[in-house]
Amino acid sequence: MTIETLSTNRSFGGTQGVYSHASVETGTTMTFSVFVPDHAPGAKLPVVWYLSGLTCTHANVTEKGEFRRACAELGLIFVAPDTSPRGEGVPDDADGAYDFGLGAGFYVDATEAPFAQHYRMRSYVERELPGLIASNFAVDMSAQGIMGHSMGGHGALTISLRNPGRFRSTSAFAPIVAPAQVPWGQKALGGYLGQHRNAWSEYDACALIDGGARLPDLLVDQGEADNFLAEQLKTHLLEETCAKAEQKATIRMQPGYDHSYYFISTFMADHLAWHAERLK
Amino acid sequence: MTIETLSTNRSFGGTQGVYSHASVETGTTMTFSVFVPDHAPGAKLPVVWYLSGLTCTHANVTEKGEFRRACAELGLIFVAPDTSPRGEGVPDDADGAYDFGLGAGFYVDATEAPFAQHYRMRSYVERELPGLIASNFAVDMSAQGIMGHSMGGHGALTISLRNPGRFRSTSAFAPIVAPAQVPWGQKALGGYLGQHRNAWSEYDACALIDGGARLPDLLVDQGEADNFLAEQLKTHLLEETCAKAEQKATIRMQPGYDHSYYFISTFMADHLAWHAERLK
Repeated sequence: MTIETLSTNRSFGGTQGVYSHASVETGTTMTFSVFVPDHAPGAKLPVVWYLSGLTCTHANVTEKGEFRRACAELGLIFVAPDTSPRGEGVPDDADGAYDFGLGAGFYVDATEAPFAQHYRMRSYVERELPGLIASNFAVDMSAQGIMGHSMGGHGALTISLRNPGRFRSTSAFAPIVAPAQVPWGQKALGGYLGQHRNAWSEYDACALIDGGARLPDLLVDQGEADNFLAEQLKTHLLEETCAKAEQKATIRMQPGYDHSYYFISTFMADHLAWHAERLK
Repeated sequence: MTIETLSTNRSFGGTQGVYSHASVETGTTMTFSVFVPDHAPGAKLPVVWYLSGLTCTHANVTEKGEFRRACAELGLIFVAPDTSPRGEGVPDDADGAYDFGLGAGFYVDATEAPFAQHYRMRSYVERELPGLIASNFAVDMSAQGIMGHSMGGHGALTISLRNPGRFRSTSAFAPIVAPAQVPWGQKALGGYLGQHRNAWSEYDACALIDGGARLPDLLVDQGEADNFLAEQLKTHLLEETCAKAEQKATIRMQPGYDHSYYFISTFMADHLAWHAERLK
C-alpha cells in the first residue's frame, strides 16, 4: 500500500497534498487529496471524508471548497477521493453523458457488465482508501466524520447509514437523498446494479432510513435556487423520511443559493465546525 | 457603458458576478468579476481591486482566492479584471509563451507595434474599468484599495504609486517589484514599450519609489518557497528600496509558501482586513 506524492503545497499553516496509488478495488490508478494541519509530533487528528459530486475529481473541492482555514483552526484532516475509476480500459457512459461512468461512480460496487470490474467505489471509499489513509497520515480513525456534495452527499449519507458507529458526524450539501426515485439515481443504479430494484435500497438514503438504519444526527444544507432541487435532489423526501423515522436531522433550506461551489464554500466552515464538535 | 451579466451566484451572503463589456481602451470584449456583499439600500461600499498574475483571467482568484468570507464580513466590494485583451485580432507572443501577450498584459499601455492597438491594460484598469464599476455597482470611490499577485502585484504597486491619494491601501502577494531588473519584466517592457529603458520606469515599483513616489504604507507577503523568488520577484530589492526611501512597508517572508493560490488564499483575509482598516 504505497502512495505516490503528486504535489504538496503549504496552505493555512498545513500541507495540502495530492497523491495517487494503484487501487486493488478499482484496478486503476486512483488520485486523492489530503489536507493535514500542522500538529504536534505523534499527535493523531480527527479526519473528515469529503465525497464529491458528478463530473468532479479530487481537484474541485481542493481548489474551490474553502475548507483549509476551518480545518487548520479545528485541527481536522480533510480527505477528498475521486468520484470514479479512470484510465485506459475503464468503460464510460455509452453516450459520454456526465451522469454515468467516468466522474459518476455513485459510490456503488457495480455488478453489471462491463462496469463490475472497475466501478467499485463503495469498497474503495469504505475500505481500501481508509486503510491507506490510516497507514500514511496522522489520522485518529476513532474520530471520523463524512460529508459530501450532490452525488457525494448521497455517498456520505449511505456510507454512514450502512456503517453504524463508524462516523461520529455526517453532513451533506445538496445531496441526492433518494436515488431510486430520481432520474440521476435510476440511470446510475440501473446501469451499475441492473434493474433488480431490491439491490438499490442499500444505496438510497431514504430507503435505508425507512429500513431502520439510523445516525446520531445529520446536517444538510440545500440551496433553494438549486436547478436540480425539484427533479433530482428532492430534499423534502429526506425531511419526510427523517420525520417519520424520528431520525434527528437539521435540514436547512438556503434562499438564493445554487448547486455550485459558491454555495458549498459558503457553508463549509459551518459544516466543519459541526463535525469538529462531534469529533473532539 | 453597458455591461452584460455572464453569471451571478449567491455566495457568503452576497453576490458573485461575472460581467463583460466592449472596452474602448482595448478594442475587445473584456470580462471581469465583482463580489458585492449584501448591504443596505443606497449604501456605498469600499472597493478593493485585485490584479491577477501571468496566465490568469478573472476566474482564478474568483474561484480560488477565498476572499468572499472576509469581504462579506468587512463589507468590501472585490473587483477582479482580466490580465490582457483577448479575442480575434489580438496579437500574442510570437512563440505562444505564457509570459508575454495573452494573459500577460503587465498593466502597461503598449507603444510598440503590433501591441499598441489592443494592449492598453494601464488605461483600462486605471480609468475605463473604474468608470464602469462606479456607474454600475454600489461602490464608494473615495474608499479604494488595490492589491495583486505576481504580475498583478506589480500592477497594484505601480498603479498606486502613479496615482497618489487615489488608493487608501495597497498590498501585494509575491509581486514583481522591479520588472526592469528581471527576465519577465525585461521581456514584457521591451516587447510592449521598446528598448528605450527610460520609458520603463513608470512601470517599475522600485524605480518609482527611487524617483520619489510614495504610498501611505504597503503590505507584501512573499513565500520563501516560491520558485520565482530568486530570479523574477527579488523581494529584497523592494525591501532595500523602501528602507533607503523611508517608504513605510510591511514585507513579510512566509516560510514554506510557494507562488500558488494555496499561498494567496492563506493570507487573503489578512490583506483584506488590512485594507478594511484603511478604508473605513
